[in-house]
Amino acid sequence: MDRYDIAIIGTGPGGLEAAITAKIRNKNILLIGNKDLSLKVEKAHTIQNYLGIPNAPGSVLGEAFKKHLEDMAISITEDKISSVYAMGKYFALQGAEVMYEATAVILATGVVLGKPYPGEEKYLGKGVSYCATCDAPLYRGKTVAVIGYSPKEEAEAVFLSEVCEKVYYFPQYKEPVQDKKDNIKICLDKPTEIKGEDIVNTLATAKEDISVDGVFILRESVAPSQLVPGLETENNHVKVNRKLETSIPGCFACGDITGTPYQYIKAAGEGNVAALSAVAYLDELKRKL
Amino acid sequence: MDRYDIAIIGTGPGGLEAAITAKIRNKNILLIGNKDLSLKVEKAHTIQNYLGIPNAPGSVLGEAFKKHLEDMAISITEDKISSVYAMGKYFALQGAEVMYEATAVILATGVVLGKPYPGEEKYLGKGVSYCATCDAPLYRGKTVAVIGYSPKEEAEAVFLSEVCEKVYYFPQYKEPVQDKKDNIKICLDKPTEIKGEDIVNTLATAKEDISVDGVFILRESVAPSQLVPGLETENNHVKVNRKLETSIPGCFACGDITGTPYQYIKAAGEGNVAALSAVAYLDELKRKL
Repeated sequence: MDRYDIAIIGTGPGGLEAAITAKIRNKNILLIGNKDLSLKVEKAHTIQNYLGIPNAPGSVLGEAFKKHLEDMAISITEDKISSVYAMGKYFALQGAEVMYEATAVILATGVVLGKPYPGEEKYLGKGVSYCATCDAPLYRGKTVAVIGYSPKEEAEAVFLSEVCEKVYYFPQYKEPVQDKKDNIKICLDKPTEIKGEDIVNTLATAKEDISVDGVFILRESVAPSQLVPGLETENNHVKVNRKLETSIPGCFACGDITGTPYQYIKAAGEGNVAALSAVAYLDELKRKL
Repeated sequence: MDRYDIAIIGTGPGGLEAAITAKIRNKNILLIGNKDLSLKVEKAHTIQNYLGIPNAPGSVLGEAFKKHLEDMAISITEDKISSVYAMGKYFALQGAEVMYEATAVILATGVVLGKPYPGEEKYLGKGVSYCATCDAPLYRGKTVAVIGYSPKEEAEAVFLSEVCEKVYYFPQYKEPVQDKKDNIKICLDKPTEIKGEDIVNTLATAKEDISVDGVFILRESVAPSQLVPGLETENNHVKVNRKLETSIPGCFACGDITGTPYQYIKAAGEGNVAALSAVAYLDELKRKL
């Protein structure tokens, strides 16, 4: 397996700026996210205060960012990282189907809006999952609930319906659900709690308790404390210093994940600093060899 | 005198982004600097990593920034602030000819490259000055040295030559000196030390000791500890936290003045955060009334 110098997780302004700066410094980078960049960028209304690009709709900024990546021959690896493990001298990143390795890692996955569901953290790994591809095999012939935060998660529900006996799908967005299968039930109630004993057995809504063997929560981002076990957080944000260092050596963070203000130019500025701090970390490691 | 909500000192990327963000938040702002923005921006070689504007010479970025200000009807007040005084509930800013008042202040004056001259800090206000307009009257009929860091300071030397008997001019740049007067002597030696007893009496170079009554040091920026008396600094940078708050309540800083990396996008990102922190400070003051 190739070991990258720096893995950058997230394709909002923070991750993109980090990738550009790290590339200029001749590092071997892995940029993981969506080729369409961030859903939040694409959907954004006019941004007035990205200095140098006045009065730009999110889509215009998105195009400018994509062009910048193209100009610098930086490509995006489309994947979703569910966990980052600090292995001492490197990091292992769990993608949907493969693991990646990198000496340093920059977290730029944005902010998770809203609190975890009651029971979510308690049952994580005991019936609660963030990745259909990873965990579907555990639920063959069983019943699962899928809480999807964007229409693209419907494909995950369909995939699960091919493996599971029954799928309850809870769309957390306004668009009508497109992908339907006989064994997928669309539920418009709001999930309120995940319950169980040793493992999950129920997803509760305001109206009823639904018996399930597992709950897949498919958000745009994973909460930082769940993404990187052991990472110090503060009010659901990654705790960083002025160098954008986190509590784990070699792990840096930038953008909305580090806290307010949630603004593009702030995220991009932090991406620059995080990348240069990661470069300094790599240089320091080299000196120690 | 009008009291502004926020005075922003400096027209590099940090100051400009702070101005744009504060204006969006409906604050009454004063943006002080040069209409040509920052000399460093204009003179910069190609900037590769300002996300969204790839591969741009400084002049191209400068034009994009100016257009952004125009679009938002933000004007630049051309002046040079030599001191900022914390008055408790507001700040007083000493311009070349007038004083300004503002409830909050954002320092974005860039970094001062190089150390102060030996004797500079000791004799500040005792023969050492940073402002010809302010202090020329003190040297009527006397002899002064002027250390100029850009060709535009030649006009200051000419102005002093009209008041003083003799002016020694030390250009600290490569361009040949254009403005000459009979009583201005151009000196290409490097100044090494400012000496005196109670007050300045000598400017030393490697070759000779020159008898002077005063020394004007005209840099692009004033060192932060000299700009704001009492401000906490660290390695010649303003000490700030993640909110870009300095050690003085109501005083914020952004850009190169807060430390490395000296990068446009980092400065702009900090300008955004500093402005929003200043806005929060003003809102908090209002709640206390």
